[in-house]
Amino acid sequence: MKTLTQEIWMEIPQRRAIVSVHDEVERLVEESRVQEGMVLVNAMHITASVFINDNETGLHHDYEVWLEELAPFDGSAARYHHNRTGEDNADAHLKRQVMGREVVVAITAGKLHLGPWEHIFYYEFDGRRRKRLLVKIIGQ
Amino acid sequence: MKTLTQEIWMEIPQRRAIVSVHDEVERLVEESRVQEGMVLVNAMHITASVFINDNETGLHHDYEVWLEELAPFDGSAARYHHNRTGEDNADAHLKRQVMGREVVVAITAGKLHLGPWEHIFYYEFDGRRRKRLLVKIIGQ
Amino acid sequence: MKTLTQEIWMEIPQRRAIVSVHDEVERLVEESRVQEGMVLVNAMHITASVFINDNETGLHHDYEVWLEELAPFDGSAARYHHNRTGEDNADAHLKRQVMGREVVVAITAGKLHLGPWEHIFYYEFDGRRRKRLLVKIIGQ
Repeated sequence: MKTLTQEIWMEIPQRRAIVSVHDEVERLVEESRVQEGMVLVNAMHITASVFINDNETGLHHDYEVWLEELAPFDGSAARYHHNRTGEDNADAHLKRQVMGREVVVAITAGKLHLGPWEHIFYYEFDGRRRKRLLVKIIGQ
Repeated sequence: MKTLTQEIWMEIPQRRAIVSVHDEVERLVEESRVQEGMVLVNAMHITASVFINDNETGLHHDYEVWLEELAPFDGSAARYHHNRTGEDNADAHLKRQVMGREVVVAITAGKLHLGPWEHIFYYEFDGRRRKRLLVKIIGQ
Repeated sequence: MKTLTQEIWMEIPQRRAIVSVHDEVERLVEESRVQEGMVLVNAMHITASVFINDNETGLHHDYEVWLEELAPFDGSAARYHHNRTGEDNADAHLKRQVMGREVVVAITAGKLHLGPWEHIFYYEFDGRRRKRLLVKIIGQ
């Protein structure tokens, strides 16, 4: 069995942003020399997501609006009990559950085995600080 | 390590439908001869999901109604910016995030290791064209 | 390849509860002696979730309130068709899709490879009966 492990650091200057990590994951799969296996890509922080969807800015705008409707930001301690700890990011913990923590992608013949429009993104819901995501590859 | 890779083609005649892929995944696990490992089942398109839940048509109806409330269809370009590209399926990209892209299931003693009611489904949110899902098995 | 398979039984006395399974998963990773690999942790029942987020009771309260807004409990057969089968737990099947069925976590140097606040939980949406979750470890 071959494995490769890589943490990727992020520092998003805004509170929220969608950032492609696709090329970096592709590069790591190549570097691993795994021909058949799986790659796990996950946020290492609990106010961020890794997800696969379209590389299209209109759609990314729609996610922003939609998630704000489903789990509105409210930095006060009135709506969200989590914010009674002194945090203001309870909404980020909810939004991340909708978009997911991780993706698992097949590796076939040494490449990411993806459909034509599948693209891997990191979604930051509470930025302005250094955070990590993890790429773990196992296979042969 | 043993692996098996199989793409499964789908062409759903309606816009939306829930289709069992359970027996096919079960058959592929048997064909792989993997005794201990994992199987990844994922949609290869970004307006579809693979999920595990009950094989019960009343519940499937409830998912339809609920997802339409959470992320309503609107084919115009007014509500969803994604539809300004000429598409009308922005809602499908949102619904798919709630239901998920993939499932990972354990293989134990040569069989899918599932609870009594766990059943694997493909959920199409924008059908009427040929699409694929992927089954990737790794183990020994 | 090394593997370890463990079912964990749960009997939650309330209808809903969030229960840490973090230490047990950590212990099983150690027991497996896998140095590099992945661990899958999934609910074996379709009205429960396994998820990773903060070990903070205020946030857990926020999940409860939020999920009840997104997918309200209604034990009657009027709102949810699933309840026409005699069940009263349709809302639990919806809530579980938001929180997810499973997590996949990397194992690096013999340990769970997690960020500083990542904590593994079982989320019961229809308790008061015996249920299982599954831990499956593969690696070397």
